[in-house]
Amino acid sequence: MDITSYMTELGKQARAAARLIATANSDTKNAALLAIARAIDSHRNDLLAANASDMENGRANGLDAALLDRLELNEARINAMIEGLKQVAELPDPTGVISDRQVRPSGIELAKMRVPLGVVGIIYESRPNVTVDAASLCLKSGNATILRGGSEAIHSNRAIAECISLGLAETGLPEAAVQVIETTDRAAVGELITMTEYVDVIVPRGGKSLIERISREARVPVIKHLDGICHVYIDDKANLDMAFNIALNAKTHRYGVCNAMETLLVAEAVAPDILPRLADAYRAKGVELRGCEKTRAIIDCLPASEEDWSTEYLAPILSIKVVANMDEAMDHIANYGSHHTEAIVTNDEARSSRFITEVDSSSVMINASTRFADGFEYGLGAEIGISTDKIHARGPVGLEGLTSQKWVVYGHGEIRQ
Amino acid sequence: MDITSYMTELGKQARAAARLIATANSDTKNAALLAIARAIDSHRNDLLAANASDMENGRANGLDAALLDRLELNEARINAMIEGLKQVAELPDPTGVISDRQVRPSGIELAKMRVPLGVVGIIYESRPNVTVDAASLCLKSGNATILRGGSEAIHSNRAIAECISLGLAETGLPEAAVQVIETTDRAAVGELITMTEYVDVIVPRGGKSLIERISREARVPVIKHLDGICHVYIDDKANLDMAFNIALNAKTHRYGVCNAMETLLVAEAVAPDILPRLADAYRAKGVELRGCEKTRAIIDCLPASEEDWSTEYLAPILSIKVVANMDEAMDHIANYGSHHTEAIVTNDEARSSRFITEVDSSSVMINASTRFADGFEYGLGAEIGISTDKIHARGPVGLEGLTSQKWVVYGHGEIRQ
Repeated sequence: MDITSYMTELGKQARAAARLIATANSDTKNAALLAIARAIDSHRNDLLAANASDMENGRANGLDAALLDRLELNEARINAMIEGLKQVAELPDPTGVISDRQVRPSGIELAKMRVPLGVVGIIYESRPNVTVDAASLCLKSGNATILRGGSEAIHSNRAIAECISLGLAETGLPEAAVQVIETTDRAAVGELITMTEYVDVIVPRGGKSLIERISREARVPVIKHLDGICHVYIDDKANLDMAFNIALNAKTHRYGVCNAMETLLVAEAVAPDILPRLADAYRAKGVELRGCEKTRAIIDCLPASEEDWSTEYLAPILSIKVVANMDEAMDHIANYGSHHTEAIVTNDEARSSRFITEVDSSSVMINASTRFADGFEYGLGAEIGISTDKIHARGPVGLEGLTSQKWVVYGHGEIRQ
Repeated sequence: MDITSYMTELGKQARAAARLIATANSDTKNAALLAIARAIDSHRNDLLAANASDMENGRANGLDAALLDRLELNEARINAMIEGLKQVAELPDPTGVISDRQVRPSGIELAKMRVPLGVVGIIYESRPNVTVDAASLCLKSGNATILRGGSEAIHSNRAIAECISLGLAETGLPEAAVQVIETTDRAAVGELITMTEYVDVIVPRGGKSLIERISREARVPVIKHLDGICHVYIDDKANLDMAFNIALNAKTHRYGVCNAMETLLVAEAVAPDILPRLADAYRAKGVELRGCEKTRAIIDCLPASEEDWSTEYLAPILSIKVVANMDEAMDHIANYGSHHTEAIVTNDEARSSRFITEVDSSSVMINASTRFADGFEYGLGAEIGISTDKIHARGPVGLEGLTSQKWVVYGHGEIRQ
């Protein structure tokens, strides 16, 4: 079968399954999640064996250590997949909820009902656990899903897909509610992101180049995360001990994450007090510092280039800029930021209020570390991704981000006059 | 200046204006709307003169009567534009509203804040009044907007744009908050829909071919309305007088609108009762009927072809299908509908509950005419369009549909452990 026919068939099956899964009740969906967890538990050896051949191929193909680490399944990671399924089963079901009920002057009663999006396409790279995470969130929110993992993880993903099928079948849900693309042919991605008749939204998860390519070529709407050039601004009205803790945590708690701070902005008036303390702490953790001229007049560090301000390091590197005041900080964020997460440290309420209103990012924070911009920390239970888009969903996207609302009208024979 | 440079300049100005308009308070935005209304009122003769040259060119270029009618401005239409501005000024401002405030286990207080999308690009066809309607909704919701009207209306749109600039300037808002593309070069549209750095969302308003072309070529997210193949299903548990009124109103209240019924589905058991009465009433109004075989066994009408079921007539034509029951009706809707608006007429609560849950349309109705799927009827005050998309906003899109929500975190020095 050619790729177009194969993908069309997958799409048709997903669309048909979506109609059924959309109206499955919460108990059934939860039972399926737990059945999938049991299937994974009882097929551990199959998963490990499948993963071993992916790892072997990966090593033979010269994958680097970081990629191999992401690709690897072990008992602990299988346990985490099982735990994740149980947690999603515990989450409240967002679908079917009726809200905003009102009677209109015409007599009709109008309300909104939360409903699944339909068919969600997920495109991701090497981590096989995404197969389970993404499938479970889509299933719980009543969506059918088509999953396309990295070709290097194909055996692992197929083995996980079989466990998912077993769990769905055991609870009487259509197996096509979760489909894994069985070919490593790249053309399959091209089909997936353009078959608007069968796919309602694409969620790409991976590096910036993957996401840019998909955004460029997709005809299906994309919920995407581009980059996280997050800022902390230390105001001259900040509690400097608090500022120290937040700036240190936002950079050094984890380096390779999108909500880590990449640029520190410091008000000129407090820069001589706070920067030397911070610089010592960063150096003790091995963070390379790159500063503007004013920064370098206070602490010893490398010069920051224009390019630094728009770079997501995802590494122990920090750019630092001394600014005159909050307005200059907000201008810098507007010019160089990626609309992900920005924090201000200040005790001045008028300023913090302006900051959270005027800064156009998916998360804006007062006196807290940017590291809190996270689905678990926000109580979403899990996240399908973090959106840097403006429409539909901003920031961490959980179950509700995989749904929409339709209008429901309860009439009594009303007609338009 | 070449088109790319011209559009980039417009985009930069819009982005800068968006930052200012996003945080303008409601009083200022309302004052601007009323100032624009006054400017239009005092420049009536300029608008009529500009429109006269568009009309003259249109006639010289052989535009048909319907297009010329849409293009025409007259005193009544200018009054309607002024009235529309006043109504938008009266609407509540959706931006800045804080909701879902909660304290998380970490100690941070989390909430959502409703915010403008940023820069909205509107692409429309000949009606010059859209210039004011769209600008007013974008302005009220705190968005900057770039408007691209039909080339046949260029003089009218420029004259309206001048009135908008006057109103903005009078209230101290940036004139670049509303920009009309001053060239009729088609390449400008290509730039507008791909400059993701400067435009956050595109709303195309016009015929299906325009919208399909824009969806195909856009890189910026599109909120779009494709077609409205709306259905009314008359159940065998329907009050047949009510069903008669609703089916007649849904088809004949207005023909050229997207929420008009295009296909009537009738349960077999009541078809012999209701179809002859309805057929007489439709014929009296000059509606051409096209029926399935079972329909034609009951009433005299043309045969419906397979293509009829997926055709949006926007005309006094109706296709009719007799179905065994609600399940067959819902299958038909799933196969041929456009996810716009569907209604059931029934007194059976279990069935109506299933219908509104299972039918995947932006509006689903019980015992009411599909013609109610409308921003004014839903209390949105006005609509920028009706979305047949699944993400972001479904159905009539008003001010709220031009906004999104960002996460706001109020901390007290919290860091991630």
